[in-house]
Amino acid sequence: MARASEFDIIARHFAPLSRGAPGAFDLTNDAAVWRPTTGMDAVITSDCLVAGVHFLTADPPASIAAKLLAVNLSDLAAMGAAPVGYTLAAAWPAEIDDAWIEAFAEGLGRAQTVNGVVLFGGDTVSTPGPMTLTITAFGEAAAGRTLSRSGAEAGDDVYVTGTIGDAALGLRVLQGTLAPPSKEAAVYLAGRYREPTARTKIGVGLAGLATSAIDVSDGLAADLGHLAVGSGTRFDIQAEKVPLSPAVAACLERKPALLESVLGGGDDYELAFTASPGRRAAMAHLAETAGVGITRIGSVEPAADDGPGVRFLDAAGADVTPKSPGFRHF
Amino acid sequence: MARASEFDIIARHFAPLSRGAPGAFDLTNDAAVWRPTTGMDAVITSDCLVAGVHFLTADPPASIAAKLLAVNLSDLAAMGAAPVGYTLAAAWPAEIDDAWIEAFAEGLGRAQTVNGVVLFGGDTVSTPGPMTLTITAFGEAAAGRTLSRSGAEAGDDVYVTGTIGDAALGLRVLQGTLAPPSKEAAVYLAGRYREPTARTKIGVGLAGLATSAIDVSDGLAADLGHLAVGSGTRFDIQAEKVPLSPAVAACLERKPALLESVLGGGDDYELAFTASPGRRAAMAHLAETAGVGITRIGSVEPAADDGPGVRFLDAAGADVTPKSPGFRHF
Repeated sequence: MARASEFDIIARHFAPLSRGAPGAFDLTNDAAVWRPTTGMDAVITSDCLVAGVHFLTADPPASIAAKLLAVNLSDLAAMGAAPVGYTLAAAWPAEIDDAWIEAFAEGLGRAQTVNGVVLFGGDTVSTPGPMTLTITAFGEAAAGRTLSRSGAEAGDDVYVTGTIGDAALGLRVLQGTLAPPSKEAAVYLAGRYREPTARTKIGVGLAGLATSAIDVSDGLAADLGHLAVGSGTRFDIQAEKVPLSPAVAACLERKPALLESVLGGGDDYELAFTASPGRRAAMAHLAETAGVGITRIGSVEPAADDGPGVRFLDAAGADVTPKSPGFRHF
Repeated sequence: MARASEFDIIARHFAPLSRGAPGAFDLTNDAAVWRPTTGMDAVITSDCLVAGVHFLTADPPASIAAKLLAVNLSDLAAMGAAPVGYTLAAAWPAEIDDAWIEAFAEGLGRAQTVNGVVLFGGDTVSTPGPMTLTITAFGEAAAGRTLSRSGAEAGDDVYVTGTIGDAALGLRVLQGTLAPPSKEAAVYLAGRYREPTARTKIGVGLAGLATSAIDVSDGLAADLGHLAVGSGTRFDIQAEKVPLSPAVAACLERKPALLESVLGGGDDYELAFTASPGRRAAMAHLAETAGVGITRIGSVEPAADDGPGVRFLDAAGADVTPKSPGFRHF
C-alpha cells in the first residue's frame, strides 16, 4: 500500500505539529481544548481549498500547505486578531502517497512556525475526488476591538498593504498565458500566487486604528467594494497610486490591458482598510514596524446617487474601474 | 443557471442559521467573534464527510446535514463539553442545485435548534468531485474538567449509552445486503445510520463522573480499544450485556453471525466510558435525567501479558472479540 493508515499518518506527520498545544493531546483525543486568554475574544474563520479550483494540482505540497494556512490567517488579520491555532480537515485522493503527505506536513510545519500557530486537531479521510483541504483557524483580539467591514466613514483614507496584482499575474504565468518580462519576475509572481503572506502584524496593529478592513482575496476592486457597500459609502481610488511590484509594473508597461487583471484579480491576500486622516503618522509607523508597505490609495466619499460602491480613476480623472466583479468561486 | 452565486447562497440559506450569534455578523465578515464564558475551556473538533464515503449520495439532504452536525457534537460530548456553535465548509459539485442546498440548510437549521448551537461562519466553494462537507464545532467545558481517553483504571466499570449496532445494520439495509425482519425495523435502522444523535446531555453530565470517554464512531470494539490502550489497561466486556435495539436483536436471532458487525461496525455515535463502581447510582440518575439508557457492559482490568486491549466474552466465557478492527477511512 502506498499510504499508511489514517492513524499512522496522524501520528507520524501531524501529531508533531500539535506539540505546542497541550490541549491537542497529541491528536489522540476526540477534540482539542483551548483556553482563550481572559479578556480576549476568540476569532474564528474557515476556508476550504479544492485542488484544481483554488490551487494547481501540480503545485508543490509545501506551497499548498503554506497557502492553505495563509488564506485563513489572512482572514484573522483582517479582523485585527492574532492567530493562535488551527484545525485541519484533509480529504486525500488515492494517488496522494506518504511522500506527498510528508512534504505537505513539513511545509505546514514551517508555515505554522513562521506564523506562530499550532495544530489543534482535525480529520483525515479519503476521497474519490480532488484533494479538498479545510483549515479552521483561531485567533484572539482584545474584547470588542475586532475590525469589521462596515465602519468606513466619509473623509477616511483608503489604504492597502504590500503590492497588488502579483497573484493574478502569477497564476497566468503558471498557466502559461502570460510571458513574464524576466525569469526573476516569473519566479516572483508565481511565488506570490502559490505562497501568499498573511499580514498578521499589520492586522493586529490596525485594531483601534482602522475604521474598516478586509483581506484582498476576491480582488482589490471586489474587496474594496465589500467595504464600501458594508459601510454605505463610495470609495474613490486613484488607480496610479495602487502599489505595484517591479514585476507587475514591467508586465503592465508591455501590456497596459493587464490593468484590469491587476485591479480585478484575486489571491493577493494583502489587507485593504480605511482610517481617519488623523492616523497617517500611525500608519507610517505601523508599516515600518511590520516591514511591509502601507500605501494610501484613495478616499471615502458619501455614497453617490447610484448607491455605495467603488470606482477607480486614472491620473486624468477617467473611470478605469475593472468590469470583472472579481474572482467568484461559482 | 441552476444555482445562485456563492454570495446569494450564503445570504439566503445560511445567514439565517447564524442569527443567534451576533459575532457571526450575518456571515458578511472575514471571520466570526466568539466570547467563551469566563472560566470555561473552549473545546474544538472538526469532522469531514465525503459523499459516497461517509454518507450515501442519495441520502436526503436534511439527513446529511443532521449527521454532519451530530458526528461533530458527538466528539464534543465525548469530551464532556456543551456545544455552542460551528463553522461549515461546503464543497458543492455542479449537480447540487438550489433546491438541494435549501433542503440541506433547512435540515441543518432543525438540527442546530435541537442541539442548541448556531452557525458561526464558514466557506462555500465548488468542486469537480464529490460533495465534501467539513464542520468544525465549538463547545465549552469547565476549565480542566474535560474527559479524556486515558483515565480508565483497573476496577472501573465500563458503560455504553443507547444501543449498539443499529447504524452498522442500517447501512447494510440501505445497501440492500441485509433483509430486515420488518419494515419498521428497516426504517429504524436506516434512521439510526442516517441521523445519529449526539449524546450531549450525558456527555456534559459525565464530566467529573467518568474516568475516560469516547464516542462510538469506529465501532464499539475499536473505540473501547482506544480507551483501553490510552489508559494502559484491559477491558473485559460481557458481549451479552451490550445493549441492543429490538431491531438488531431480531436480526441477530435470524443470523447470529451478524454479531461481528454489531460489535465491530461503526457510526452509532453512542458514548462509551468508564467510571469507578462508586458512581453506579449517579449513572442511573444521569440516564434518567437524559432519557437515554446507560448500560454497564464490563470491567477494567490490569493489562495482561500481551498488553492493553479489549476482549469480548460470551456468557460461557468464550472469546467473541470481533476480528475486524473497526471501520477505517483508508
